[in-house]
Amino acid sequence: MASFTRLIRFLAKDGHVYYGDALLPNGITDLAKAAQARVIHGDLFGQHRVTDQVADVRMLLSPLARKDIGTVRCLGLNYEQHAKESNLPIPKYPVLFYKPVTAIAGPQDDIPVAPIAQEGEGLDYECELVIVMGKEARNVPESSALDYVLGYAVGNDVSHRDWQIKRGGGQWGLGKGFDGWAPFGPGIVSAKSIRDPNALHIGTKLNGKVVQSSSTKDMIFNVAKTIAFLSQGTTLLPGDLIFTGTPEGVGMGRKPALWLKDGDQVDISLEGVGTISNRVVFDKATSKL
Amino acid sequence: MASFTRLIRFLAKDGHVYYGDALLPNGITDLAKAAQARVIHGDLFGQHRVTDQVADVRMLLSPLARKDIGTVRCLGLNYEQHAKESNLPIPKYPVLFYKPVTAIAGPQDDIPVAPIAQEGEGLDYECELVIVMGKEARNVPESSALDYVLGYAVGNDVSHRDWQIKRGGGQWGLGKGFDGWAPFGPGIVSAKSIRDPNALHIGTKLNGKVVQSSSTKDMIFNVAKTIAFLSQGTTLLPGDLIFTGTPEGVGMGRKPALWLKDGDQVDISLEGVGTISNRVVFDKATSKL
Repeated sequence: MASFTRLIRFLAKDGHVYYGDALLPNGITDLAKAAQARVIHGDLFGQHRVTDQVADVRMLLSPLARKDIGTVRCLGLNYEQHAKESNLPIPKYPVLFYKPVTAIAGPQDDIPVAPIAQEGEGLDYECELVIVMGKEARNVPESSALDYVLGYAVGNDVSHRDWQIKRGGGQWGLGKGFDGWAPFGPGIVSAKSIRDPNALHIGTKLNGKVVQSSSTKDMIFNVAKTIAFLSQGTTLLPGDLIFTGTPEGVGMGRKPALWLKDGDQVDISLEGVGTISNRVVFDKATSKL
Repeated sequence: MASFTRLIRFLAKDGHVYYGDALLPNGITDLAKAAQARVIHGDLFGQHRVTDQVADVRMLLSPLARKDIGTVRCLGLNYEQHAKESNLPIPKYPVLFYKPVTAIAGPQDDIPVAPIAQEGEGLDYECELVIVMGKEARNVPESSALDYVLGYAVGNDVSHRDWQIKRGGGQWGLGKGFDGWAPFGPGIVSAKSIRDPNALHIGTKLNGKVVQSSSTKDMIFNVAKTIAFLSQGTTLLPGDLIFTGTPEGVGMGRKPALWLKDGDQVDISLEGVGTISNRVVFDKATSKL
């Protein structure tokens, strides 16, 4: 469906914001290294074309503009080793929660920590493969589920464990939904370019040190099963995102726990897609509650 | 901010879909009774005007078109008597979950029950006051929170208790997010026309019999507190909806439990706003999982 291979959205040196098909040097697959791209015109989910116009990248932005993003779904406990480190049973069905679209941010944006999220403790990272839906999907079988995917990106399901677990009344949305708490990118690699989304290395570095290192093959519900299941009775729309859960190694799973601090640098990578690099920045303003 | 009093969206007898300011007979406040409306042109959240063009209503639609709806937030356990019937403690903070925009439906649409939601048991109704945000709100204090509201509607937070509670891994999104499981309307009464959103009768009739009858004054977190809290660290956008929780009387709280069946008629009313009337219709197709 998509005519691009490696979609990025960027502020160009000419001052415009474009969608583009990234031009990468030979042997480089990390979309974060894209210095140039061929500009894309039209509707990413419909008629569009990759033009001959080459633009220079000044800064990468969220790979989808807010107006092009639908519902942001997330899975919890979708890696076997992560379920074990959390001392929770392997789920029988996908565990579904949501983030608001205001949580979405770019691959190099700061992660803002508002005063409310500076209360208590438990600021944590979660590296995740992100599915970008390309076509409307309802009641689709697993066998054809991947046909509805535009492409794949990597994201950070930033979480505040106190708000998520202790103060949320059992519902995770509150502690995971703050502004900018779902950076993703660095771009979207088209589904046709990724032979098997469940055979990719995924990991996190915190201030340069590896803290998560796993493979998407450890997923309990793989990409096709996830889409098929979530589409039952529910229409998935073009531009919907699915964060597919995180592997072991999160701060909460460590002894002692390892929480993110003001100024921390979090780099999250997915094989064949690239790296998002976000810095934790505590807001200095005080809560108005 | 809004220049209308009673916003409806409707298919007109002339075949067009309009936003309109409802014209009601003297003494009638139920927007579901609107037979005519003055057509509105422009951006509901910005520059718009109520014209002199009067159109005849053929059918009421979701009061906001899908493109005008942002994030759909919902509160759980936000009425004291409902928390008691659920045998759960009064929450210290609002309990937040989400529905996808595909759950939104019109005030007279059928509630479709897909094969996956015919499994197990526990199909239930929840009458709720719905806040429609009119302006961007972030870190707003309770004292000015109502200034950001476009208006109020009434909705049904349709729920499947097995998928919500037993099969969802503790997260409620799955059992509440199916297509069409958030009908709302019948229109949106502007915030300036409702003196106190926390002094309104709200209730549900199932097949003509009263099953919920309460007042929004029983809310644990009232409308202003809800907006102020949800805006902390999180930008609420124009067109975002907040379903504010349901009072006592849901099917789950009864002995024996009372579950919705194929063909059931559910009428939900909010004082000063009106009634939404939706019929439960089981899909005949089988699950493709």
